[in-house]
Amino acid sequence: MKSTKATALANSNTALIKYWGKQDEKLILPMTNSISLTVDSLSTTTTVEFSEKYQEDHFFLNDEKQTGTAENRVIEHLNLLRSKAKMNLKAKVMSRNNFPTAAGLASSASGFAALTVASCKALDLKLNQKELSMLSRRGSGSSARSIFGGFVEWIKADEASESYAKQLANKDHFDMRDIVVIFKQQKREFSTREAMKISKETSPMFKARLDVVETSLDKMRKAIEQRDFTLLGQTAEADCNLVHSIALTSKPKLSFWIDETVKIINLIKDFRKGGIAAYYTVDTGSNMHILTLPQFAAEIEMILNRIPYIVKTVVCKPGDGAKIIDNHLF
Amino acid sequence: MKSTKATALANSNTALIKYWGKQDEKLILPMTNSISLTVDSLSTTTTVEFSEKYQEDHFFLNDEKQTGTAENRVIEHLNLLRSKAKMNLKAKVMSRNNFPTAAGLASSASGFAALTVASCKALDLKLNQKELSMLSRRGSGSSARSIFGGFVEWIKADEASESYAKQLANKDHFDMRDIVVIFKQQKREFSTREAMKISKETSPMFKARLDVVETSLDKMRKAIEQRDFTLLGQTAEADCNLVHSIALTSKPKLSFWIDETVKIINLIKDFRKGGIAAYYTVDTGSNMHILTLPQFAAEIEMILNRIPYIVKTVVCKPGDGAKIIDNHLF
Repeated sequence: MKSTKATALANSNTALIKYWGKQDEKLILPMTNSISLTVDSLSTTTTVEFSEKYQEDHFFLNDEKQTGTAENRVIEHLNLLRSKAKMNLKAKVMSRNNFPTAAGLASSASGFAALTVASCKALDLKLNQKELSMLSRRGSGSSARSIFGGFVEWIKADEASESYAKQLANKDHFDMRDIVVIFKQQKREFSTREAMKISKETSPMFKARLDVVETSLDKMRKAIEQRDFTLLGQTAEADCNLVHSIALTSKPKLSFWIDETVKIINLIKDFRKGGIAAYYTVDTGSNMHILTLPQFAAEIEMILNRIPYIVKTVVCKPGDGAKIIDNHLF
Repeated sequence: MKSTKATALANSNTALIKYWGKQDEKLILPMTNSISLTVDSLSTTTTVEFSEKYQEDHFFLNDEKQTGTAENRVIEHLNLLRSKAKMNLKAKVMSRNNFPTAAGLASSASGFAALTVASCKALDLKLNQKELSMLSRRGSGSSARSIFGGFVEWIKADEASESYAKQLANKDHFDMRDIVVIFKQQKREFSTREAMKISKETSPMFKARLDVVETSLDKMRKAIEQRDFTLLGQTAEADCNLVHSIALTSKPKLSFWIDETVKIINLIKDFRKGGIAAYYTVDTGSNMHILTLPQFAAEIEMILNRIPYIVKTVVCKPGDGAKIIDNHLF
């Protein structure tokens, strides 16, 4: 029986300059470049097996068979990879996240990066990281960045074959921490994909960010290159506020901030007054990221752990890109 | 001894389409029209006496002698009115607010409207409401609207003599409620005046609102004319979110929302799901206004009064414009 299996592990990434808005919905071509930090402690492990024994594709996430949109996105991505490999065996895909799914923690980034890398290995497609990031992008835009470790920029382009991620600096270049703050689970009203589309179409603030994003990207590249943590934090916060403003002024209103978000934002402001270098960014869930330097991480974590409405904190370091591992999930 | 005294009472107003950004800082010429509701329960009473017995101007607010910026703004306004009246007696000004000062409850709107009306009476300047609103504007922009009762629009213009408020509809035209929600007192980092200037100069979102404000104004005029409460509420909320987005993306960040604001925004969303017509707007303090219809006011107030972090609620109806009263404060 013809059968081929591979397993990959990919880390999540935290957007420092966000991906917000597509110029092409189908090819997943972004309207702007984006910059992120691949982190070490939020990961997806995915085993893919293409085999004649499967009559159809199956996708399991955290041991639960997925249906609907989640399954369809995986099948569509498998179809893309199969057509590239000129092969049409059905597959079983098993994924495990070590963090809550659909909580704005970019599970689709690590998820599609792991799926792409594992599938390409199983399909014997010999691709470099740039090519992997272009393919992964088609499954989920931000997953293009999770192919690489450390500090990563995803390049916008008008052509599908020119939009890919590249590493700005490896994980050892600038030792910082991303403390992920997880509040009680909130059901999101809109997926990131829907939210992006709604806000592009309805927010009067959408275009204003496009006018300033090149400046933000320049500042962020400089901050990373020069290891200027203040510039990195201020620039990430400002971009986060721009994207949140776009969401807030969309119709319907897309608010990813809950009252706890505002409380922690104020706490971070107090941290800074007390000499602790800390900045926030919020993704399209209510959970937050506190960016800080290694020497402050333990103190911040200790304080956060005393706050009753914080369910969990995860202290992340700069992490590796997606890679093949030996331990299959099945 | 030459002496002349008058007392006026002016109500606060709640911006439905906000005044945000000046085209002329000195003449207080706004960049956009704005629309407000003059309310009946938040007022300033001011007695002004011009007399030879005063060697200099004195300003008392809630029985406390004012100094610094607060005093200077009043003296500057007295100077403007005296030059208009071709008179130069010094004055004693005594004002009382029936609500917390500098809590984002537009105390400068009712304050300067009362000061203008009382002073013009004492100075025997026989002015109509349009002329009073133009003069009052020079003290505090939004006070131009408090000269009139009911629903009021303040017109932008390039010339100082063409920017004034006018009544769109009197207080009996559309019976609605503005429930003012007062949280624990927060010290503001920036005055409205400073915040407007900072955001005009630094927010990438500032211009985007200018592009849509004419549409918002049209909607609001229509909502008032047709007594369409849903349109009124939705349009007020959308404009509030635009202004907050401008504030949030300014440098330094100007956030007038505290965690309690976000909690009440979510509560209002729940009200609507439960069939209660309620919408929010937030001025440049953390306190909020819940716009609703008369039949829902008691229920909303009852719920709000059970919330521990709400210090006080004031249920306001559409109110009168500024007027001369007989009872002097001294």
